[in-house]
Amino acid sequence: MNIGSILTKSAKHYPGNWALIYRDKKFSYSEINERVNKLANAFLNLGLQKCDRVSIFQYNCPQLVETLFASWKAGLAVVPINFRLHPREVAYIIEDSESLAFVFGKEFKSSIQSIRNEITRVKYLISTSNSLGAVDYEELLANSEPNEVLKEVNENDLAWLFYTSGTTGKPKGAMLTHRNLLAMTIDTLAEVIHVNPEDVALHVAPLTHGSGLYLLPIVARGATNIILESKSFNPELVLEAIEKHKVTIIPFMVPTQIKMLLDVDTTKYDLSSLKYIVYGGAPIHPEDLKEAIRKFGQVFVQIYGQGESPMTISCLRREEHVIDGTELQLKRLSSAGIPRINIEVKIVDENDKEVPTGVIGEIVVRGDTVMKGYWKRPEATDETLKGGWLHTGDLGYVDKYGYIYIMDRKKDVIISGGANIYPREVEDIIMLHPAVHEVAVIGIPDPLWGESVKAFVVLRKSARATEEEIIEFCKKHLASYKKPKSVEFVKSLPKSGYGKILKRELKRIG
Amino acid sequence: MNIGSILTKSAKHYPGNWALIYRDKKFSYSEINERVNKLANAFLNLGLQKCDRVSIFQYNCPQLVETLFASWKAGLAVVPINFRLHPREVAYIIEDSESLAFVFGKEFKSSIQSIRNEITRVKYLISTSNSLGAVDYEELLANSEPNEVLKEVNENDLAWLFYTSGTTGKPKGAMLTHRNLLAMTIDTLAEVIHVNPEDVALHVAPLTHGSGLYLLPIVARGATNIILESKSFNPELVLEAIEKHKVTIIPFMVPTQIKMLLDVDTTKYDLSSLKYIVYGGAPIHPEDLKEAIRKFGQVFVQIYGQGESPMTISCLRREEHVIDGTELQLKRLSSAGIPRINIEVKIVDENDKEVPTGVIGEIVVRGDTVMKGYWKRPEATDETLKGGWLHTGDLGYVDKYGYIYIMDRKKDVIISGGANIYPREVEDIIMLHPAVHEVAVIGIPDPLWGESVKAFVVLRKSARATEEEIIEFCKKHLASYKKPKSVEFVKSLPKSGYGKILKRELKRIG
Repeated sequence: MNIGSILTKSAKHYPGNWALIYRDKKFSYSEINERVNKLANAFLNLGLQKCDRVSIFQYNCPQLVETLFASWKAGLAVVPINFRLHPREVAYIIEDSESLAFVFGKEFKSSIQSIRNEITRVKYLISTSNSLGAVDYEELLANSEPNEVLKEVNENDLAWLFYTSGTTGKPKGAMLTHRNLLAMTIDTLAEVIHVNPEDVALHVAPLTHGSGLYLLPIVARGATNIILESKSFNPELVLEAIEKHKVTIIPFMVPTQIKMLLDVDTTKYDLSSLKYIVYGGAPIHPEDLKEAIRKFGQVFVQIYGQGESPMTISCLRREEHVIDGTELQLKRLSSAGIPRINIEVKIVDENDKEVPTGVIGEIVVRGDTVMKGYWKRPEATDETLKGGWLHTGDLGYVDKYGYIYIMDRKKDVIISGGANIYPREVEDIIMLHPAVHEVAVIGIPDPLWGESVKAFVVLRKSARATEEEIIEFCKKHLASYKKPKSVEFVKSLPKSGYGKILKRELKRIG
Repeated sequence: MNIGSILTKSAKHYPGNWALIYRDKKFSYSEINERVNKLANAFLNLGLQKCDRVSIFQYNCPQLVETLFASWKAGLAVVPINFRLHPREVAYIIEDSESLAFVFGKEFKSSIQSIRNEITRVKYLISTSNSLGAVDYEELLANSEPNEVLKEVNENDLAWLFYTSGTTGKPKGAMLTHRNLLAMTIDTLAEVIHVNPEDVALHVAPLTHGSGLYLLPIVARGATNIILESKSFNPELVLEAIEKHKVTIIPFMVPTQIKMLLDVDTTKYDLSSLKYIVYGGAPIHPEDLKEAIRKFGQVFVQIYGQGESPMTISCLRREEHVIDGTELQLKRLSSAGIPRINIEVKIVDENDKEVPTGVIGEIVVRGDTVMKGYWKRPEATDETLKGGWLHTGDLGYVDKYGYIYIMDRKKDVIISGGANIYPREVEDIIMLHPAVHEVAVIGIPDPLWGESVKAFVVLRKSARATEEEIIEFCKKHLASYKKPKSVEFVKSLPKSGYGKILKRELKRIG
């Protein structure tokens, strides 16, 4: 089944419902489907064939959403490209994916110009501005037919080619199929958010960074998508939008964004319409989460996933986000919940042997939402999908109830004097210090111990603390060998467009 | 993924939640899983191999539920047998399915005795009474190990072999796979009922008549299943159980059962815990539905499915069950809603060509929940799954919004003087007559017209009407050629164990 069918259906069942709201523009399901059909027909008239790749490089906007669905409905595969990437990286992804079409936003004219000669395989350059010899997006639509397009696809056909940065080497394209996306859509509706056609969802994250997929459950139910521009996250704009549009669902936020919301006076806004805020993508510090629940109410749902199994590995339900619960409930706030119905999870050692309950190992998963492999990387695919299980690269353990506790990325673990130290554990302690706003802990080379613990700390506004104080604080709450050997105070931490702290950047500056 | 995994998971995540309540017995998820593992181990120790069939013939009881999950977890396929069937039919199904194991309730001792020599392939006879040389169910468990069993299966392995009566000839086994059942489970949670571990579901229909599948979404979420004995439907017992157990969900009822509930004084019971009553399996008369909404509130959800695509073809949402809505909303009350997310629906003519919107034809569907075929019936499979689409045998049309209106079973359509008459349309009119409690309309042979319309009518208690009155009433509301030529007053209508009116019985008595 073509994942694009969800738009075809909603346009039929709920033609008058608002599908998309962006700035002052509103598009009904009927209108957006007509524009999508025009673009899909244009793609087909250009001669694009089933599973051909269409790269997208845009800020959040209606055209981006249209391009996603038009590609799917025409049987093509989408390559979403993070707009924060360097032009060289963009060129690499377009070439590696062998994209025949490339749709970019007018804001990126100059960076695309700089790589124009490198993206040699692209036959069709399409843009919201008619620059660089690109076909004008609106002109393409104006000259196209609106008749319904919904190509037959094989369920294992490529639909979403998502480049993940990986630890080493060049980014790799995780291949998600129509079946993967459909499974993700339905299971999200089953376990994460209950969506009705009357719901209003606010998308605050960049759609090209993977969160374009969060459109799917909303579209499948004929509900409304509010699209915010995504150049940078503005907490006031988010709060205003919730009040203005009576938003019921925020289908995805990263913890950094939640933290930014907490730094704003939320009492000025009417947020009573909110039913769900889904978060994930990085660990949230338990103290931040509790404060968020206090401010926003019991609306949070945590999901754990990754580019290779988007949105759906595990889920900590909304009902479990309580701040006055039992000890067990409070402990679970620091877990990633339980495996989704269509996912199996195991914790394994280096030899892929399952470890006992409570023992830390690599989290491996399999199920309907796991990618079919990396694009043109048979070796990386074999390694990552060894034995039919996706090796997430995340370390964690499962308790006797099957709740998953993620410790850290495998590559971020610090090995000091032969002992494993999980940065997240140290970070969670440092976050308890009243002067600390943000922290990131990494391992740096140490001639004696192999690696030693270093903390980068951002202090709260007008708060003060010394390196010794922080180290002393850790000693009180942690085994001594886990305490940082050094603390560096910084104004901010390097982050991805998604809000994830970039530890590899910190390691570079050491 | 093995559909039995949903029990393994819920036993892990919610060990102390009540999984099953039957009479005065309560089983936690941990307890029921232990019993299921013992039975699964017993099956494996007996030597049963992957996809071997286990026939079940029982009234609703915990052992029935255990046998379902034990079979799945051991990688076996279940053959549920309707306990209302004649022993000859039971023997036929056991033999046709080549079941190696047969689990039957002690109440059926004598009927099984009568077919003991016919079910020659059965190697393992298991019963809740130790009669007929059968292994005693509880003894089997007592001598077995409780270690966790969850066999690896291929997603297309047989899990549920459901015999449908069919129009002609012997019953055929619809083959449902682990993948089918998992898709059905998840989509039901996504679109029909939102289930949390705190929910309480009441099963009123016989689990061996197909509604055993309604356990799945409840088990997958770790919620509680109340099992009622099912020898016959007792509306008072249902209402008592709702009040006593604070039931939130009735996962399946047939319209006849809803009608029986309406005949009882419901005001004596506290039904305020109810959130969902899912119904389907036969058309409901709009007048009955409106009365039901008036009495029970906005808790109804309609699903349309059949043995070959259980539970999941389309759904009319709870929010659409309004009695004071717009004209469009009221019209939709007589529809079967819209196709499920993972299902495609088309209306086709005799040549399998799609007909225009609003034109009546056969409803054909495809998607994740459609069976892989009929057991050992390649010709029937080819015919029913022609072109990859399940031919439902139901006639209906789709309106411009994609809402499905089911007219009748193809085989029930009356062809009189060359014109098609849909019995349901005539029935809906007769139901409007104040004296009428129930009605069934069929075609009987007519030397002049080919067929003519005949109505069987059950009058309300102490109400009176004549044949002429009913015919006259129809003439007022219907095209004259659709009116019954004859009306027969009967005390009751023949029904299946499920509550469906058996038109083939009526045709026999003509």
